[in-house]
Amino acid sequence: MNDFRPVLFVIGLLLVILAVAMVLPAIADLAVGNPDWKVFLLSSAVTLFAGVSLVLAFRVPRFRVDVHQTFALTTLSWVVLTAFAALPFAFSTLEMSFTDAYFEAMSGLTTTGSTVIVGLDAAPPGLLFWRSLLQWLGGIGIIVMAVAVLPILQVGGMQLFRAESSEKLDKAVPRAAQLAMSIALIYFLLTLAWSVMLWLAGLSQFDAVCHAMTTLATGGYSTVDGSIAQFDNAAVDVVITVGMIAGSLPFVLYLKALRGSLMDLIGNSQVRWFLGIVAGATLMLTVWAWAAADLAPLAALRYAAFNAISVITTTGYSSADYGAWGTLAVALMFFLTFVGGCTGATAGGIKAFRFQVLYGTARVQLAHLLRPHSVVVPHYDGKPVSEAVTNAVLGFYFAYFAAFAVVALGLGLHGYDFMTSISGAATAIGNVGPGLGEVIGPTGNFSSLADSAKWLLAAAMLLGRLELFTVLVLFLPSFWRR
Amino acid sequence: MNDFRPVLFVIGLLLVILAVAMVLPAIADLAVGNPDWKVFLLSSAVTLFAGVSLVLAFRVPRFRVDVHQTFALTTLSWVVLTAFAALPFAFSTLEMSFTDAYFEAMSGLTTTGSTVIVGLDAAPPGLLFWRSLLQWLGGIGIIVMAVAVLPILQVGGMQLFRAESSEKLDKAVPRAAQLAMSIALIYFLLTLAWSVMLWLAGLSQFDAVCHAMTTLATGGYSTVDGSIAQFDNAAVDVVITVGMIAGSLPFVLYLKALRGSLMDLIGNSQVRWFLGIVAGATLMLTVWAWAAADLAPLAALRYAAFNAISVITTTGYSSADYGAWGTLAVALMFFLTFVGGCTGATAGGIKAFRFQVLYGTARVQLAHLLRPHSVVVPHYDGKPVSEAVTNAVLGFYFAYFAAFAVVALGLGLHGYDFMTSISGAATAIGNVGPGLGEVIGPTGNFSSLADSAKWLLAAAMLLGRLELFTVLVLFLPSFWRR
Repeated sequence: MNDFRPVLFVIGLLLVILAVAMVLPAIADLAVGNPDWKVFLLSSAVTLFAGVSLVLAFRVPRFRVDVHQTFALTTLSWVVLTAFAALPFAFSTLEMSFTDAYFEAMSGLTTTGSTVIVGLDAAPPGLLFWRSLLQWLGGIGIIVMAVAVLPILQVGGMQLFRAESSEKLDKAVPRAAQLAMSIALIYFLLTLAWSVMLWLAGLSQFDAVCHAMTTLATGGYSTVDGSIAQFDNAAVDVVITVGMIAGSLPFVLYLKALRGSLMDLIGNSQVRWFLGIVAGATLMLTVWAWAAADLAPLAALRYAAFNAISVITTTGYSSADYGAWGTLAVALMFFLTFVGGCTGATAGGIKAFRFQVLYGTARVQLAHLLRPHSVVVPHYDGKPVSEAVTNAVLGFYFAYFAAFAVVALGLGLHGYDFMTSISGAATAIGNVGPGLGEVIGPTGNFSSLADSAKWLLAAAMLLGRLELFTVLVLFLPSFWRR
Repeated sequence: MNDFRPVLFVIGLLLVILAVAMVLPAIADLAVGNPDWKVFLLSSAVTLFAGVSLVLAFRVPRFRVDVHQTFALTTLSWVVLTAFAALPFAFSTLEMSFTDAYFEAMSGLTTTGSTVIVGLDAAPPGLLFWRSLLQWLGGIGIIVMAVAVLPILQVGGMQLFRAESSEKLDKAVPRAAQLAMSIALIYFLLTLAWSVMLWLAGLSQFDAVCHAMTTLATGGYSTVDGSIAQFDNAAVDVVITVGMIAGSLPFVLYLKALRGSLMDLIGNSQVRWFLGIVAGATLMLTVWAWAAADLAPLAALRYAAFNAISVITTTGYSSADYGAWGTLAVALMFFLTFVGGCTGATAGGIKAFRFQVLYGTARVQLAHLLRPHSVVVPHYDGKPVSEAVTNAVLGFYFAYFAAFAVVALGLGLHGYDFMTSISGAATAIGNVGPGLGEVIGPTGNFSSLADSAKWLLAAAMLLGRLELFTVLVLFLPSFWRR
């Protein structure tokens, strides 16, 4: 049997951090005299008690985790933290059911951005801040995981990003801790910079900070019901557009670029692929919005760039009802829902490096057909891609599309129409946010869905966020047979 | 530069066969005194002239082809034969445009089954027979290709099915010719058997023969506008349901089963996977049709089995308007459009063995995560799957979904709604036939589409039918640089 004490110990530590974080929205509510501050202090107290109890009960003399424990920790921490993060929603004046509260918290921590709350405009500031903070914390959580944990676990081909010196989990921990601190600092500074820019662009200080957090986290929660469209401010659109891209680039490359040159960032092959996809999609949507949806050229560029990038980077803001732009826009947005950003960033989805591996494999395959006896190996970033990576990427695709189909059929079973079912599944697994169609589209809301559909989508968000295999491995009988 | 003389020589031979085949519908028209028999004799004469010219002009002293020539032959023969097969449609009393005629012929030869003809009920028998014959010829063409050509070309992982003794293209030709003859005989006998059964079930001799041909070819052209629903005959439904499955099983296994035991057929792992998918989908759709669409249990089973199997096997008949069965049915049918039958059969789609490789890879991947230092290799049919096969399957998936996205966006560009665009792309690449929605759904028709959309879909049918890479390789600059 596995020893889960270190797992529970770490979850305890994370709960303590969450409890401390809950004090911030309490301050926001206190500042405007909203009685909801008590909700946050109560939630904080409950969370702190649970966290401290776990830490005290399961503290270990010398901390070390093996592969099994790391898998258990990754999934379990996300599930447990979401439950506690849901408390303020459940206790608040919005009187949300626990299903709604858990959905909203999961959508927050996974930086998805699908919401079940109607009436954000009138919601207490603490709650709005809490939603942004959840996405921001989820964002840094996923970057640290993607940089320090998943490459070592070899999930979904992410061993491509393993630093050579850290083959063993044990040795990697101190190095990872240092790396995580540097990245967290950059994340914080970027958020600060975007807060200032959004404020200068015309948002209130509160809105600027909240949107800076959910922009860099590629989360997509807004403080208003109408999302970014409600501000109707071109400068805000531009700042956020650039910010969503900034949140989708590999954060280790920011570190490299700071120590070296900017070329370390923009010369990276994954970054180039990602920017290429962004440019292509923006161009296509701009031309369509101009030619078919009758927008002026500059307006077409503004709205097309914002919304295409919002979906590609899995942020999920909307600045226009692109569902009304007509057929190509809808089909394009559907496919963009699968793309995602770079690895080691806050964006979800399939991610650019997997498309690189896929494309490279297909390209090599073509060349191989003409010279069957030659040995041609796909390359990534100048290095040959090992069979283990190819297999991992292939497995990832299978799991991704299988999960997509299962969730879409599950939504179909609830009686939701074709577009809602398949876009709802895609948006949840890709951690994007809005789907397509009238119910869950860019101007819609997830509140009308059945409870069971909400749980299904929350599970899909978690599955997508943790790159599927991290979760699926827990369902192997051999995981528990030790 | 490649020497294309042998390629043109073989295409000449195939045109001669096509010209001979055109005499059959002429006989059918003559028998009922329809003046359209002249159309077929004229088309036959034109085709014969072209064929004989090619044979005489490009006859080679000793016939041999290399890899380059085989690729060129495969794609070019399909494109050229379709053009000549379209002649009767273009010349006939239906007065079809060449676009419509080419679409109909491509949909026939690729055993897709999408039609642009409205008014089949009143069409001359020769033309109806020609449509069935095209699918039947396309069916045997694709089996022979899948058994004798594609495994040697190593397209899309099909080297899994290479007979050990035929590593070289040259040695393989005599053996392949013998195998092709045996398989063609089985195909003919199965068609005969199904003709008799359909006749006994109550169809006219003409309808029985036509439908037996399009059933075994998993093609889906019917002789009536209302497809199989129009006969409203349970026995016919059952006979065709079994026939569509028979057409989707690997035909080499029929040979093995004849020489050995039935276990060679039903014990095969790909057959088991395929039948498992069929059973699962049928069960799911039956329960839904019964519970949500209010059909009686037995009627639910009859219609659900027929239509699910029609889509999985890429046949494309319809015996009920499953588009009206509601949400789960529509979503399920959409995903089933991608599945396909077994390799070495007439069915299109992704095909069961690729799902086996995918699933096997994902499963091994999961086990590998828990024991990172163990070497676990995916297996197919008890044998380890080589890296070349995994890469080929990965490349195939990428090409399949990339083509799907491009075609869907192309349809979106034409202004077709979301469901029409994405189901139209899926049904064309998978060689299924009907899409979803009001325009191209099971009760719809492709005639209203724009000409450019028809060409796009015809190209997609060819791409899917030839397993994508066979066609794509021609677009490599290095293919022509020799």
